[in-house]
Parts: sequence; structure tokens; C-alpha cells
Amino acid sequence: MMRYVAVIGPGTEATDSELDSAREAGRRLADNGFVVVTGGLGGVMEAAAAGAGDEGGVSIGLLPGLDRSEAGAAHTYTVSTGLGEMRNALVVRAADAVFAIGGSWGTLSEIALAARTGVPVVSVAGWPLHDYPEGVLVCDNVVDALRHLVELLRPPAPRGR
Amino acid sequence: MMRYVAVIGPGTEATDSELDSAREAGRRLADNGFVVVTGGLGGVMEAAAAGAGDEGGVSIGLLPGLDRSEAGAAHTYTVSTGLGEMRNALVVRAADAVFAIGGSWGTLSEIALAARTGVPVVSVAGWPLHDYPEGVLVCDNVVDALRHLVELLRPPAPRGR
Amino acid sequence: MMRYVAVIGPGTEATDSELDSAREAGRRLADNGFVVVTGGLGGVMEAAAAGAGDEGGVSIGLLPGLDRSEAGAAHTYTVSTGLGEMRNALVVRAADAVFAIGGSWGTLSEIALAARTGVPVVSVAGWPLHDYPEGVLVCDNVVDALRHLVELLRPPAPRGR
Amino acid sequence: MMRYVAVIGPGTEATDSELDSAREAGRRLADNGFVVVTGGLGGVMEAAAAGAGDEGGVSIGLLPGLDRSEAGAAHTYTVSTGLGEMRNALVVRAADAVFAIGGSWGTLSEIALAARTGVPVVSVAGWPLHDYPEGVLVCDNVVDALRHLVELLRPPAPRGR
Repeated sequence: MMRYVAVIGPGTEATDSELDSAREAGRRLADNGFVVVTGGLGGVMEAAAAGAGDEGGVSIGLLPGLDRSEAGAAHTYTVSTGLGEMRNALVVRAADAVFAIGGSWGTLSEIALAARTGVPVVSVAGWPLHDYPEGVLVCDNVVDALRHLVELLRPPAPRGR
Repeated sequence: MMRYVAVIGPGTEATDSELDSAREAGRRLADNGFVVVTGGLGGVMEAAAAGAGDEGGVSIGLLPGLDRSEAGAAHTYTVSTGLGEMRNALVVRAADAVFAIGGSWGTLSEIALAARTGVPVVSVAGWPLHDYPEGVLVCDNVVDALRHLVELLRPPAPRGR
Repeated sequence: MMRYVAVIGPGTEATDSELDSAREAGRRLADNGFVVVTGGLGGVMEAAAAGAGDEGGVSIGLLPGLDRSEAGAAHTYTVSTGLGEMRNALVVRAADAVFAIGGSWGTLSEIALAARTGVPVVSVAGWPLHDYPEGVLVCDNVVDALRHLVELLRPPAPRGR
Repeated sequence: MMRYVAVIGPGTEATDSELDSAREAGRRLADNGFVVVTGGLGGVMEAAAAGAGDEGGVSIGLLPGLDRSEAGAAHTYTVSTGLGEMRNALVVRAADAVFAIGGSWGTLSEIALAARTGVPVVSVAGWPLHDYPEGVLVCDNVVDALRHLVELLRPPAPRGR
């Protein structure tokens, strides 16, 4: 069964370091066979989509508006929702796990939403909070985060004798 | 630019003839390079996705629930929305045009929604109403409907000297 | 327990006769202790809210946009949703029953949505279709429709000896 | 013009002190003529609704589910949305300002959402973060928070000569 990982993080205000992490995350997610889900716009979203594309992977962008032309060009597919910021919840609902990059309030808002609805989260380059919500794993780098994600989403071994 | 066409119609209560039309529609849409969007479940949705798959095309199913395992197996990608029947509006919003098959009330409801929001509709095997909403083209068969869709979604010729 | 009835019908394109029916419906609904729910804009929505106000009743308008100032002035309370046409589904979800006035495609779309989700509908001045969806009661006038609604929403008699 | 203030905070896991603050907030909001909007369930939501009721005010609860019977009993009116956690965004959209009580992750998630969409927030009894998002005013107590809210929502004085 195909697995979907949402990459969330700042849009146009993303730092170069966040963009690098997002592109690397996209690449490694695609390498591991995950479909990348994003909010469909620029910054971290676009970089993750571009990373997935680097490895021949697929990204799906769930756009806040009704106009597909606002989507980041690197996304393989886009879905216009017209829901505005409410589409953040759709991004989380569409994902088996969330890969958070950077520490903006918007990103924290989505992390909290994921944690509340039982979607596991790995976070890279977030704020050094000591009290992330349960279900959020703060990681040192993309490689570590990816390793945890793969572990989290590994299908259970078949039970047998 | 990629174009998306929503195929809408009855789910498990679809007739054999509707399923045949949906599969043919999916095939021809994929042949013409369209991405097929559906409500992600069985019946006409699944048949259209299967048709797209027959031709190596792509389908995206926008599910009413939160559980991706309820999706029709032929869908290439699925997006869990948790919106229930409200996801019908998302299916219409995600599409550049709607391909309606069959005459259920549910299908008419979505046709009306598309017509109200300016998304063009072609309809096959619907009820013989004389007063479909403006923007809805009632067609005799899938081939005719497809031809009209292609015409509708053709990019405007470049203006020249 | 308070009961909510959604009054649905055309907005600015409503006919005088539809507006009269909506105002009368609003009055009688308020008289019977129902809270009137609408889509918050003009036409039938505003007339129903005004009718409820005539009798000291309450109306709640669920607006498609984010700006409460677009609401019809007669509504007692308004809720901005920013969902566009998707708020039609919220109007139906918020109601114990639907009172439909007039025969526009938009109205039929909402009637169909209500019927699919098990919310009972009474309809006045709709199109003379012979095949309304199950769960829709086509009535000759507002008085009849109201009588049916009251019957539908009457709490079951307590079982006992 | 009527003004709406959303009171947000923990549900059943609210502390006694948070419940006291919520009830006082509800009372003072009603006293000042505000309509109280909540997420419709227990804890802080129910306490704020009860406080509004103490002063003859009105509260509207926007429920996550489809069943109105899950609403806290003190709410004057309830709107079933069926949107699950996505209804948090509706609560914020329906409000002219947000009154946050307590420091759960859920509450922070909604604060961040409000801040991102330009809805002013006052916060009482939240975590002692030093870096709340812009647009959030952390207050020592309900009285102070209310005073700030009134100031924020005061209509601008008419310009004159």
C-alpha cells in the first residue's frame, strides 16, 4: 500500500537552510517510495516537491485557493480546495505521517493539529521547545527524521508461528 | 499544463451500463492526457479510475472519510478528507470540467454545484430532463462527450499578428 | 430541545411570490418555536429571517464568505464560514429539517444533499417534478408544509404504561 | 453591529482555575454585549457559555460532529458541522476576536491560526512563552483581557472636521 507523508513548513519566508532540508526530505521520501503531500505553494512546500521530483517521485499539493496556477511548479499534481487556511487540516488528514521543517507558528499549529488527531510527526530545525506535544519526534537532521519515519510507517510483520 | 476532469456518478448502485460508460470515459480521458478525479469510492468512481489505469493514466480519489483503505483499489492516488458528502464540492473544485454518468439525485446535485460555480459539465446517460442548468451539455455517448470536453478545455490559440 | 429548520431557496433572483412564501415560512417557523437557519444572504434567506423576526424568533445565517457585513440585515446571528458554496452542506447539517422554497437548480442541489444525508425536506413552489428524491415532501403551500414539518419533528411520545 | 468573541481552551481536561476564568470571561463578554462563540463541547467551552447565560447573553457552539446532543447544555444555540477538528478554523472565522484560556497544545494551535488570519487574540493563563505570535496579547487575568478586547473591538470614532 502506498504511504503518504506531508511535508509542512514556511512558505515564501523559508530560510535557505529550511529549503535545503525540505529538498533533501523530498528526495529521501521519494527514494523510500512515499508520496509527498504539501500545501501546494512555495518555500518548503515547493522545495519538498522539487526534491521528490529529483528522484522521480510524486508530490500532491493541496492548494488553499481555487486557482491551480498559484501552485508551486514542482508539484506533480495539485488539488484546488478553496478552503483557505482550513486546507492545512486536509494536508494532515491526507498523510500517514508529517515531516515538519522549521519553527514558524504556522508550522507549530499544524504539528499540534497532527498530534491531536493521532498522525505521527517528525520535526527538523524547529524551535528548541522542551515540551512538544506527544507524538512529535524532534530530530537533529533530515536523515535521522527519515529513518524514524520509515520505522513508524513500516507495516507490521505478519504474525505467524 | 495538466488538466483534470472529475468523473461523477453513482457508487455501488451503478448499473452495468453506467460502469461500462465510466470505464470507457476513464480510458479516453487518460488517452487524451487528462488526470481523472473522483470521489474515491466504488461504482462509477472505481470504473473511471480503472479505465484511466488501462491506458497508463492517473486518477486521484478524494475520499469522504479519513480511512484510505475504503478507497476503490484502482485509484492511483487517494486523499482522505473526512468531510463526508461535503467532499463532493472538493471533487468539483479540483476539476477543470466534470464528466457526469448516470442520473441519480446525487449526481444531479453535483452537476448543479458545478454549473453554479462555472465548471463545465458533460453528461452521459442522465435523466432526459429538458432543463438542465446552463453550462451542462447532455451527450448521447462517451465519445461525443469526450469530444466536447476536449473542445472545452483546449487552450486558446495564441494570438498573432 | 430546540429544533432548527433550514430555509433554502434563491437569493437575489427570487420572485416576489417566493419572497412572500419565505417570509410566511419564517413567521410560522418562529411561531412554532423553531430556530431558522439560512445561507445568510438575500432573497429567500433574508425574507425567512425577516419573517422569523416578525414573530420575535431567531435566525442564524451561515455565510459563504469571511465578511459578516455581506449578511442580510434581518438575520439575528451570522456565522462567517469562508467555505463558498460548500457552506450549503453546513446549512443542511445544522438543520433538523429543510424548508425549500422555489425551484432553482441551486435549491434542488441542496434538496438532493439533504435527502442523501437523511434530513427530511418539505418543498413549496418547486418545479413540478414527478420524481423528487425520497424524503422530500412536495407541498401546495406554506401552511401545509409547516404542518408536515411539525409532524416530522414532533418528539416521540414517551413510552410507558 | 453585533460583535462575536470566540472563547477557546481545553475541553474535559480543563482545570478548575481554567473553568473559573472561562465562566468569568463568558459573563463579562455578555455584559459587554458580545456574542460568545465556542467549539460547542465541555470544559472551557461549556463554562464560557454558562457565564454568558448567567448574564442573559447568547452563546453559539460550533460542534465538531453531526449530532447536536453532544453539545454542552449551556449553549444557547448550536451548529453541527461534521468537520471534526477542522471546525476550529470555523470558530476562529466566526469571531471578531479570540479569548484564549489555558495553555494546551490545542489552544496554541487555534491561537496560531487566529494570528495567521488576522483575528486579534487575548490570552489568559496560557504558557509563559516569550514568543507568542504577533497579534496575541498575553494578559494577567480576565478583567485585563476583557478591557483589551473592548478596546480592540471598539468601532472607530467617526471622522469629522
